[in-house]
Amino acid sequence: MSKAIILVSGGMDSCVTAAFAKKDGHTLCFLHLNYGQRTELRELRAFNQIAQFYSVKDKMIVDIQHLAEIGNSCLTDSSIEVPKADLNNKDIPISYVPFRNANILSVATSWAEAINANYIYIGAVEEDSSGYPDCRREFYDAFEKTIEAGTKPDTNIRIKTPLINLSKKEIILKGIELKAPIELSWSCYKKEDVPCMECDSCALRERGFKLAKIIDPIV
Amino acid sequence: MSKAIILVSGGMDSCVTAAFAKKDGHTLCFLHLNYGQRTELRELRAFNQIAQFYSVKDKMIVDIQHLAEIGNSCLTDSSIEVPKADLNNKDIPISYVPFRNANILSVATSWAEAINANYIYIGAVEEDSSGYPDCRREFYDAFEKTIEAGTKPDTNIRIKTPLINLSKKEIILKGIELKAPIELSWSCYKKEDVPCMECDSCALRERGFKLAKIIDPIV
Repeated sequence: MSKAIILVSGGMDSCVTAAFAKKDGHTLCFLHLNYGQRTELRELRAFNQIAQFYSVKDKMIVDIQHLAEIGNSCLTDSSIEVPKADLNNKDIPISYVPFRNANILSVATSWAEAINANYIYIGAVEEDSSGYPDCRREFYDAFEKTIEAGTKPDTNIRIKTPLINLSKKEIILKGIELKAPIELSWSCYKKEDVPCMECDSCALRERGFKLAKIIDPIV
Repeated sequence: MSKAIILVSGGMDSCVTAAFAKKDGHTLCFLHLNYGQRTELRELRAFNQIAQFYSVKDKMIVDIQHLAEIGNSCLTDSSIEVPKADLNNKDIPISYVPFRNANILSVATSWAEAINANYIYIGAVEEDSSGYPDCRREFYDAFEKTIEAGTKPDTNIRIKTPLINLSKKEIILKGIELKAPIELSWSCYKKEDVPCMECDSCALRERGFKLAKIIDPIV
């Protein structure tokens, strides 16, 4: 079995992504990044519970607090308010954390090269998302080329994005089919006790469950 | 004047790179990364002294200690000895830190996007180096494409590698021409008081000064 590093924020998308990697037959290694996001502790709890569900032995939790220091996002700067959801907005929202996913993938690649993992799974969604530039497959294709150019000649690492073209509704249905522990996941950008139901992430999740005609187990 | 982020480890190459950026007329913003390297404190002192020399106002020091946790390099893992220099070795040496420069450039890009800097300067050397894969221009070209794909549409960031095709001798001569404060730089991988003169980095520096027929001010 080949090793795969799964980027697990603790949200629904990463939870379902772990289920895909499991189905693909890999040994799962879970990586979680704290980057000073508002709901850091709640996400970490979800991460640990999902890891326990999949009996993951290799876990790594990394602090990249410089993204909070750099700021420029409502997720990491408490002086910028988390806006109410606007799913028709076509601009890049203020929740965009500058180049966040490249920081995350760089950590994952360093770990993958050190432990000889051949895959990095990330639950990025392009279709039914907030429009972040670093959530598009085009970005992951470019990053794969950067890995090829910047690692040892015998290192071979592919980035898997099983959700990239799925809608939230499809992610939920696929997650249920793959028996992903969606009830352990946490999506809200703003609150840690009960979902705020007002931020983009809550709104996307709510719409997905509504379209799937299923009740969200965490609400 | 446009802002440029200069990656300043405190070594001679980054010191001369800062001099290039100064000559190019940019406002210098200095970024230093602590990644659990053996000579972290000594490098940081050199960073601060070079920043003072150039009257740099925007300084950022970032801890990416996960590279030490990931290990697999004699620079970050104290259980792996720093080998004596072998400048004829064609393999990738054990001082290679897996995908280190992508981690560093990701931080730099996040900062650049947040403060509207258009350039990142890095003192990578391809010709006369230890053969790290993430020190070749091919890697930086791939990374630039990743920046284009993963940042906002109006973000425009180029990676400048003014030393990439220079030999150590040429770097020294260029540094002197540009009045770079080479006497403030620190290159040794192993020691923090006097250079060990045994590691790859010391050996490359020593050979460069010998070929340039100049006495290294720090020896």
